[in-house]
This record gives sequence, C-alpha cells and structure tokens, in this order.
Amino acid sequence: MSVATEKRTGEHWSDRYAGLLAVGFTTLVIFALVVWPGIWRSAGSSVQKPGVGLPADAATLAGERGLTSDDIYAALKTYMPTGQLDPYIMIASGGQSGQMLVIGIPSMRILRLIAVFTPEPWQGYGFGGEGDKVLKAGFVNDKQPLTWGDTHHPGLSETKGEYDGQFVFINDKANARIAVIDLRDFETKQIIKTPNAINDHGGTFVTPNTEYVVEGPQYAAPIGYGYAPLDQYKDKYRGLITFWAFDRVQGRIDPARSFQIELPPYWQDLCDAGKGVSEGWAFCNSFNTELATGGIELGNPPFEAGTTKNDTDFLHIFNWKKAEEVFKAGKVEKIGGIAVIRLQTAIDEGILYFTPEPKSPHGADVTPGGEYVVVGGKLDPHVTIYSYQKIQDALKAGGFDKDAYGVPIIPLDKTMEAQVELGLGPLHTVYDDKGYAYTSLFLDSAVARWALGGPYASKHPEPGWTLVQKLPVHYNIGHIAAAEGDTASPDGQYVVALNKWSIDRFANVGPLLPQNFQLVDIAKTGDQMKLLYDMPIGMAEPHYAQIIKADKLKAFEVYPEVGWDPGKMAVDPKAVTAPENARVERKGNTVEVWMTVVRSHFTPERVEINKGDHVIWHLTNLERTRDATHGFALSGYNINLSLEPGENQTIEFDATQSGVFTYYCTEFCSALHLEMVGYFLVKP
Amino acid sequence: MSVATEKRTGEHWSDRYAGLLAVGFTTLVIFALVVWPGIWRSAGSSVQKPGVGLPADAATLAGERGLTSDDIYAALKTYMPTGQLDPYIMIASGGQSGQMLVIGIPSMRILRLIAVFTPEPWQGYGFGGEGDKVLKAGFVNDKQPLTWGDTHHPGLSETKGEYDGQFVFINDKANARIAVIDLRDFETKQIIKTPNAINDHGGTFVTPNTEYVVEGPQYAAPIGYGYAPLDQYKDKYRGLITFWAFDRVQGRIDPARSFQIELPPYWQDLCDAGKGVSEGWAFCNSFNTELATGGIELGNPPFEAGTTKNDTDFLHIFNWKKAEEVFKAGKVEKIGGIAVIRLQTAIDEGILYFTPEPKSPHGADVTPGGEYVVVGGKLDPHVTIYSYQKIQDALKAGGFDKDAYGVPIIPLDKTMEAQVELGLGPLHTVYDDKGYAYTSLFLDSAVARWALGGPYASKHPEPGWTLVQKLPVHYNIGHIAAAEGDTASPDGQYVVALNKWSIDRFANVGPLLPQNFQLVDIAKTGDQMKLLYDMPIGMAEPHYAQIIKADKLKAFEVYPEVGWDPGKMAVDPKAVTAPENARVERKGNTVEVWMTVVRSHFTPERVEINKGDHVIWHLTNLERTRDATHGFALSGYNINLSLEPGENQTIEFDATQSGVFTYYCTEFCSALHLEMVGYFLVKP
Repeated sequence: MSVATEKRTGEHWSDRYAGLLAVGFTTLVIFALVVWPGIWRSAGSSVQKPGVGLPADAATLAGERGLTSDDIYAALKTYMPTGQLDPYIMIASGGQSGQMLVIGIPSMRILRLIAVFTPEPWQGYGFGGEGDKVLKAGFVNDKQPLTWGDTHHPGLSETKGEYDGQFVFINDKANARIAVIDLRDFETKQIIKTPNAINDHGGTFVTPNTEYVVEGPQYAAPIGYGYAPLDQYKDKYRGLITFWAFDRVQGRIDPARSFQIELPPYWQDLCDAGKGVSEGWAFCNSFNTELATGGIELGNPPFEAGTTKNDTDFLHIFNWKKAEEVFKAGKVEKIGGIAVIRLQTAIDEGILYFTPEPKSPHGADVTPGGEYVVVGGKLDPHVTIYSYQKIQDALKAGGFDKDAYGVPIIPLDKTMEAQVELGLGPLHTVYDDKGYAYTSLFLDSAVARWALGGPYASKHPEPGWTLVQKLPVHYNIGHIAAAEGDTASPDGQYVVALNKWSIDRFANVGPLLPQNFQLVDIAKTGDQMKLLYDMPIGMAEPHYAQIIKADKLKAFEVYPEVGWDPGKMAVDPKAVTAPENARVERKGNTVEVWMTVVRSHFTPERVEINKGDHVIWHLTNLERTRDATHGFALSGYNINLSLEPGENQTIEFDATQSGVFTYYCTEFCSALHLEMVGYFLVKP
Repeated sequence: MSVATEKRTGEHWSDRYAGLLAVGFTTLVIFALVVWPGIWRSAGSSVQKPGVGLPADAATLAGERGLTSDDIYAALKTYMPTGQLDPYIMIASGGQSGQMLVIGIPSMRILRLIAVFTPEPWQGYGFGGEGDKVLKAGFVNDKQPLTWGDTHHPGLSETKGEYDGQFVFINDKANARIAVIDLRDFETKQIIKTPNAINDHGGTFVTPNTEYVVEGPQYAAPIGYGYAPLDQYKDKYRGLITFWAFDRVQGRIDPARSFQIELPPYWQDLCDAGKGVSEGWAFCNSFNTELATGGIELGNPPFEAGTTKNDTDFLHIFNWKKAEEVFKAGKVEKIGGIAVIRLQTAIDEGILYFTPEPKSPHGADVTPGGEYVVVGGKLDPHVTIYSYQKIQDALKAGGFDKDAYGVPIIPLDKTMEAQVELGLGPLHTVYDDKGYAYTSLFLDSAVARWALGGPYASKHPEPGWTLVQKLPVHYNIGHIAAAEGDTASPDGQYVVALNKWSIDRFANVGPLLPQNFQLVDIAKTGDQMKLLYDMPIGMAEPHYAQIIKADKLKAFEVYPEVGWDPGKMAVDPKAVTAPENARVERKGNTVEVWMTVVRSHFTPERVEINKGDHVIWHLTNLERTRDATHGFALSGYNINLSLEPGENQTIEFDATQSGVFTYYCTEFCSALHLEMVGYFLVKP
C-alpha cells in the first residue's frame, strides 16, 4: 500500500470562472448534465473509472444536507470505500483508560484498542492467559495490584530517527510504569514498574535508534517510595529520569542495562530526544521551579498559583551519551534495584544543564534535523526556539550561574534562536515536510502553523520564524500529531488536533463527553490549512499520538505457526497441534488439560474434575485462516481468552466452586458457533 | 434535532441522458464548469447554500482516488461536518468486552463506551467509586469476582412498543447476569447475578411497556449451580427463562416481583416479546432438542453434529400474562431466592407451548404489529413465518402431541403462515416502514430484503413473502439492526450489518481483527439497497444493536445539582458543595475526607494520615460547565474516578502502603491542569 500523493490546482474553479457566471443558467443545465463525465476526466489527473460522472442523487443530497464546498471536499478526502485501506495509522495513548488506540487516517476509524495497563476481555488480556503475567509484573512490589494506568505518550521505535514499525512504548503517569507493545501482533509484552518513582510524565520518547526509551518524571517525591513530610520538600524530594535500555532482539526493556538520573524536585514535564546534529542529547522542560507544596486549605497559595510565580522555569539539557559512559564506568548507586546517577555526579560529569524557559512550559520538541528545540510556554504567548549549536557554543565558553542544587544555568540569550508569538496557551509542536511547524494553542483553541527559520526557511514562501495561519479547533486542544511529524523526515499531508473538550460537537449521550480528534489537511502551503473531520473519542482521553505510514507496519496476519506463544513469540513446546493429542491428565490434585480449538469444536468437550483441584489448561487454536479467532470463556470462573489463528495460551487456576459450568467460544466463528461449547464439571 | 427525510429521483441522471452522451465533450467542458452552480440549484430540492457549487478540487480528488458515483453518494450521505449531529444513535452490545458502544448514525462514529460488566477507568467505573458496588452486586454468591461479561442483546426500554429513550438493559451470556443502564447519564446502575442459572442468551428483550425484561437461557445445567453428571442430563439439567420486573420510577429491576420458568434442557436461544395483537406473549427458539452432551474425545458426536441431527427444533411460545397471574397466585417454588414456576406448572397452566421450527434456528423476531414471528434457521435456507392468529386458533382447537417433558407441540402446519427462501444461513430479521423485512445471511455474507405479506403487502410493490434483493456484505454477518427496526413503527432509512469477520477490509494491525459494521441505505424501495460505510469495531464483538432516534434521548448535559450521587440519582446529603466546607476528620483509625474539585485545584491539597488508617473520601465536582469533567487518580492505590460536573463520589480503602503519593486530575481540564494535584502522605 502506498501513500497517495495528491495534486491540486490550489485554486477554486468557481473563482477562476467567476466572470462567466453572469451567463443564464437554465438553458445550460442540460449541457452541463451531459458533459459532466467530461469534466470528470479533465479534472481528475489519474481517473480510474472514466465516465462515472457525478451522481445526480449525490448533488441532491448535498443540497438537502446543506453541505458546503469545503464539506464536500472533506467528505471525499476522508471517505474510505469498502476494501480501501487507510494509508496512515495513528497510535494514540488512551489516558486514564490505561490503553492505546490504533486509528486509520484519513478515515479516522478506530481499527483496534490495545490493552496495556487495564485488563480487557475482548482481546483476552488479563482474564487467565499470558496478559495476567504481563500485568502482574507491573504491580507495586509484587503486592499492590494496579489494574489501570494513565497512558500519556506513545513512542514508536525508531531507526536513524525514522519510525521503523517494530515496537511502540507507553508510560503510565499514575504509577510511573512503562510498557512495550510488539507491532507484529499489537499486543503488550512487558510492563515494568519504574523503581523509586511515584509518577512519570515525560515518557515515552525514544533515542534515534531506540537505544533508550526515555521516561521523564512529573511530581517530585522522596526517591524509592519513602516517606518525608512536605516541610522537607527541598531536601528530601527529587525528580528522577529513567533511560530504559531496549533489547530489540528480545523485544524487551533490559533493566540491568538501564539507569536513572536524580534531578532537583522541580516538576519535570515533557521530554524529547535529540536527533541528527543533536543526537546523544535529550531535553525536558519543567515547572514548579518555585518548589511550591500547595496547601490551599492552610492558607498557602494553591498549586496553580504557587507553581506559576516565576517568569521562567528550566529546560533540562541532558548529555545521555555521557550519562551512558558514566553508568558503564560504575559511577552510580544501586537504589531499588536500578543504577542511579546521583545529582552531584550528573553535575560533575557534565550530564545535566539548565537554560531558562518561559512560564509553565509544556512541550519540548526537537526539529526534524535536530537543530532546534521548540518550547511552548502555556502561560506565555510565544514559542521559544533554542539552538542546539548555541547551546554547544555556550557550553564550550562555560562560566555559568547555578541553581540551588548546583546545576549550571546557561543564560537564555546564549541559547535562544528565536521567539514566535502564536497566541494563547501554546503547548506542543510537530513538523511537516515544507518547513512548517504546528503548535497547539490550548486557550485559543487553535492550531498555529508557523514558518521555521534556519535551514528550513527555503522550504516555504514565508520568512522564517513567522506565524502563517491559525485554524480554530473545537475545543481546548492539548497535544497535536502530524504524519511522521516527530521523525527526521515528516510527511506533511495531515495534522490531528487532540482536542480535550467537544462540548457541542456530538449528539448528547450524557455528562461524560468524548474528546474530539480533528483531522486537518495541511497539504497546501500558506494559510490553506483546512479542517477535514471530527472524530469523537468516547472511551479514552488520548494525550499524545504518533502517525506512521501504514506500509511500515508488518503485522502478522495469523501467527506464523500453530502453537505460537505470543509471550515468547515462538512456538510453545507444550502446545498440542492436533486434536488426537488433546487430553486431560491428573497428577495428585493437579489436572492438566491440553485442548485444541477449531471451527466448530473444542477437543475435549468435557472436562470433569473435583472441587479443590489445581487446573493447568493449555489451549491451541489450530486455524490458519485469517480472522478465524476463537474465544474461550469459562462461566463462573472469570476467565476469557482470545485465541488468534495459531495461538497457544495457558491458564492456571484452582477449582474453588463446584457445579456444572460451560466453556464456549466467544467469537462468532461459524454458523455453528453456538454449538462450540463444552461442559466443565466440578464434583463437590 | 429532527431526522432528515430525503427525496431522491431514484434514477441516475447519466442513465437518463445516456442518448446525449454522443455529443463531443471537450467544447462543452467550459460550459459545464460555468453552469455547475445551476445544476446544483436545480438538483437540490432544499438547497441551503445556493451558489456553492461543486468544488473543482473535490472533483480532482475523487478522480485521483478513483471514487465511483456510489462512493461519492455514500461519502456525502455519511460525512458529518463539524457541529452537525447524527440523527440516529445505535446502542450496540460489546460481546466479550463486557461493555456497550454508543454509535452515531449515519457517521458511524463511536460516541462513547458504556462500561457494564468490566471495570473501565476512563469513566472511573470500578476503580474506587460507585461502580465498585454495582460490579460487586454481580459477583457469584458475593464471593467469586466476575470482572468481565459477554454482553449480547441490548434492550431499550419501551412504552407502547416504542423506544422511550429512558433505559437500556443488557445480558451477560458468560455468567447469566443482567444490567440496567440509565440513559440520563449512560451509566450502569444495577447488575444482578441471575439466580439458579449458569449462562443466558435470549436476553435482553422487553415487553411493550417494559413491564418485564426477558432473559432467556442458553446451555442447560442443573438448576441452582448444582452438580449432576452428564449421564443425568435428561433428568437433572434444565433451561430457565427469567422475567425480570422493572421498576421504572426507581430505575431498577425488582427481583421480588420477578419470576423464572423452568424449561426442558433444550438450548434456548433468542427471544422476542409479542406486541400489538400479540402483546402478553413471548417467543424463544431453541436448538439441541436432541439433548446432545458432546464428548468428541470419547467417540461421541461433537456438539456441532449432535445438536443438529433433528430436522426441526422447538419454537417456545410463552403466555407471560398468564405466567404473571400464576406467579401472583403463588404457584411457584422459591429457589435460590427467586420464584420459579416449575415446568409441570407451566404446562398445566397453559404458559408454555412448542411448535416445530427449521433446523438450528437463531432468531425469533416479531413483526411491528405483532402479527407474525419470523424465525431464521441457520441450517435451512428459508425464514419461517408463524402467525400469531393461527397459533391462537390452534390453541383453541387443542389436541396436541407432547414432547418428552409433556409440553404441548402445535403442528407446524397449524402455525406457519409462509416460508421464504432467502439463501444460506439466515439468522436475524428486522423491519422497516415500507413493509420489508431484512434478514442477515451468515453463510451467504449478505443482507436479504424481502417483502412481508398480510397487512404489510400493500406497502411495497412486490408480492408478499418474496425475496426482493440480496446485498453482499463483508463478511459473515451475524445480527442486523435497523433504525427503530424492532419497534411498533420502524423508521426505514438505515440498516446496519453486524459482520463478524472483516478479513481484508482494513489495514492490518495484527492477527486479532476488528468486526465490520456496514451501514446500508434502505431508503429506496425495490432492489436499491446500497452499501454506505464500513466501520471497524476493534475493541468489542457486538452481537446485537438497536438504533434509536437521537431526539428521543434526553441525557443530562451536566448533573442537575452539585453533589449529585449518580447511584441514587439525587443529591448526596454528605456532599460538600463549597470549598470552605472541605475538611479532613479523624475518628480513631478512620479518616474521613470531604474534598471539592474545581478548575484547577482540589481542596484540600494535602492529606496526611498514618499507615493502616481506614480512609473514607468524598469528592464533589463543583463545576456547572458542560464538559468540565475532572478525574481523580490516586497513585499507587489503584484508584481513579471520573467526576462529571456536579458529581459526587465516595471511595473507601485501607492505607496499606506508606510513603508519599499524589492525587491528580486525569482529565485535561484547563491550561493549569497539570497543577491540579495534591499530596497524599502516609506515615510509616
């Protein structure tokens, strides 16, 4: 599948021929009707079905519905006829749903939900199978169950700064956790509870070859789940950024090769990894450099006031290549099972620097070539552009003041390339192929297109560092995503506004409203951004999303072999691959079941055990046909699996209830699907 | 909002003017371009924006994309410009996701997910608040947790056989449970574990004034979670249909006024309530009248063969008004806490009758006026139409054979009105306003439109009881839904094919494929059904759906008053409604917190307790602005709430972990949303 490139005239024909419109209409209608197929052919540069013509009923319909010419264009741009595939795929976080969403672009249809931190039975995740183990690995100290998360920032794996379509990572802000999803089957393979940290936010962001997955912190706390009263905030509370080493062959994060860096107890926010010229560096912004600790009920300023007193906060500048060296040299402390580079070490070794950034920043986004970091200050109408080269020059020159913790502060005038006034509440910035940047304006409810300067200035007609267009969106845009928009070579074509409020955009279905993803056409230069589509998100609150070319994804259509263990991504040697090997074996109080699953029966169809038995139950879907998924629901026992073609799963439980139960296929797999059932008999 | 009625010519202009197409194109193109706005006006019967014209860039785009005239019509029919609202709302079950989906029609956008049997943190359901109580009421004997369900058939509440937009009900096939959702806030208010039953399937279906919510059984088992070996199947296993009395004022099912009827151990399937002339009756079909018990591993026929030996199964005919009388007269046994009408009583009192139905039936759908019951036999190419009047005439005549359990069997020739051959695998049938029926054909992967006879014959040009059109769908259609299609007055306009397989329709995102809901235009008579839209469902496996006019729904925009308890649907007297009343009180080891929530702070911002304390925490969202929802996430404690404007929730837990935790708002509510946080300090 290739991404359609489109040629447009950039001009509306009705403008072009406006002078001719004085000609009387009625006598010409008949001619127009006759010749329309001709227009069709002349207008379409790559017509595939000549002579189709414009359907009269479509014109009637458009009139009846009051569709404008922009509406018609948008409809034809986003409509996907049956069997045509979306050229782009968006991977969006799900916020407090704990999940991720996979969305086709431009049709804005949800292709699937990926269960990550929350059990989800449709995909059989967390109801008896492999997912239970993945989820359990993310509990606090293996004790406190966590069955939801607050997913914020998906990070697609990259090779040379380009999405490679292999993996996606995501963080859980609520509990400081991180997850790995394998894009061969779009399933969560690993969850790690981040040691020492309570919350996170600035993750996940990958380094250009996915050497590390960066997880930045949010609210400061004593390192290691310790206790300290708030009056010891300055001394005992800390921030903590984690560089998770990723093993691409195993498809797993390797905690033994990963490290953390201790930070002052500012509230670090979003991060981004340098790339191109700035490869080896990373950037995070921060707020609450005031060290506010709240307490409105005590007469203190509330956090919203206490954390916004200063005019500037600190952009954190990390030399992660240097940090890696320091880690490998053993200049770390082991805390909570992970290597920690203490703050003083980070300062001494030249790993961490600050530079001021405007009031309450919320996005730090590196340009495609890595030359600049763009920071949106949500209480400042500008975006501030920092030059990587200037930062390096300043570092060479040296001679800095330090913050209260001894971190060197590079003055703003030594690091800033430019500021562009965009409007109220600039948050996040993404990029296109024409040298434009796109920044979300939360308070303005708008997408700002502005022209980059420097090496990007020659790509667009406008002067560098200038605002080009502000497109209203509906409403309260948070993040923003562009097609391959945070890679080394953005695609252009589409931007999606991740609007937090929808208010009046959709039919009222109760006081909990959906978010509104709005698709924006950015194919044309200048002030010609156009709104294409409103997509409600009524099951999640996505914070960030990435958009990858669909043809970069190489997902399995079915699992490669029968007996496939999606946990190990290899055949399970215990799987039975033919019904004649299906069986039930008892050893003492343990009953082990090997079951095959195929349209339209389970083998065996009866499993009889005693109350109190321990049950180990292997199930293998023998199907090789795409979409021939079977479910396995065990009534009364809270068990449900989704067995995709070839998949093997193992469940294990104690038979605590006696009686007669059924197991049945939960996927409508064939005309005799209702007959795909068995009896599970538990003798009292 | 009103439902647009559309006038169409029923003819394609290019056919009409085909003779003129010999005229040379090129010289006329210029005229066509000029006069297009005129066509616009002449073709559109209710043009709202005259002179808009067809945008040239849209024509170019359509050409480049190879869109056919049908595609263009479909695009303009389904596209919803920003701010325009869908005129119909579909409520779909979620299958093994345990949830329900609310979908706008014709745009096919998911407006929200309703969490029912599965905890869902985006809506704060099952992570510390009111939802925990609702979910817990559905556990088995208050002990065995059930945290998922297999939702099958949503049933919208009805008044006089019409959807009234007040409530929707849903069943859990996996565990025999039933749920009540209040459509004022689209939240689940009640879950009941159905006593005595293991599975269900034939629910939920409501009687015409929602006196009862019908929950029919599926796989037979000993009544009451008892144990009996399969060789006692005939004697000890039973089916069990439940008539749940609904209290519309309380918005709750009242188990004390509800009753069950014992049935033979056939596997009852789908049900429907009579309406109009047949009000007071209900109908369920069944399969496995063979009493097969499986055991392929023992050399027995597998269920798929054993349950399909007979040429006919039994349509179950219930006189529920009579059953209600019998229940009120106390001719019941109390089993598992509910009144059960034993099988013999049902026979003796004239509550239950059978009539043969073709091989492996799967839908029993009453016509809008209640005159007929249409049954699809999935291994028979016909639908069989039963006449309510003929059933009544036969009952008066009497003199029936009986099945092995003594249930009277009315011969097929005394009950059947007609049979219509439709194709392979007919399942379910819905209706429109033009006297057509629509039946899903699973094996043919098609929607069959056929003409009803009797009083419906005058509504359409075709003779009654004839097949009109078969429209291919993609693929393996299960259920089917039509706009108000199972009410007393269907709307026509749209049918949705609930396709079980999608195979090649969407970009490949792994071996677990989405379902495919296909929207079909049924506005025109005859063989002019057209496919409009493919909608992937990648987070659920909906079995059935109902489509209601959007303007029948009267959901709250915000909760009516501050301090609103969505459980009681009234103000919680314990709620604090102003920040000055927020406080923390300790009594022994119990700490009670009253907290207010508003942009952009919680009051109080610090909660300090001791490890081991019992915490009761009330939270009130003070907002009155639509969409000003706040979340409440408590790190490390697996707690997350969604507090819609005005909402009050109470959480209760033991402080088992010491340390410093944060609570923060999970909904991006304002520019200072990240500052909406507090510290929860638990002293060791």
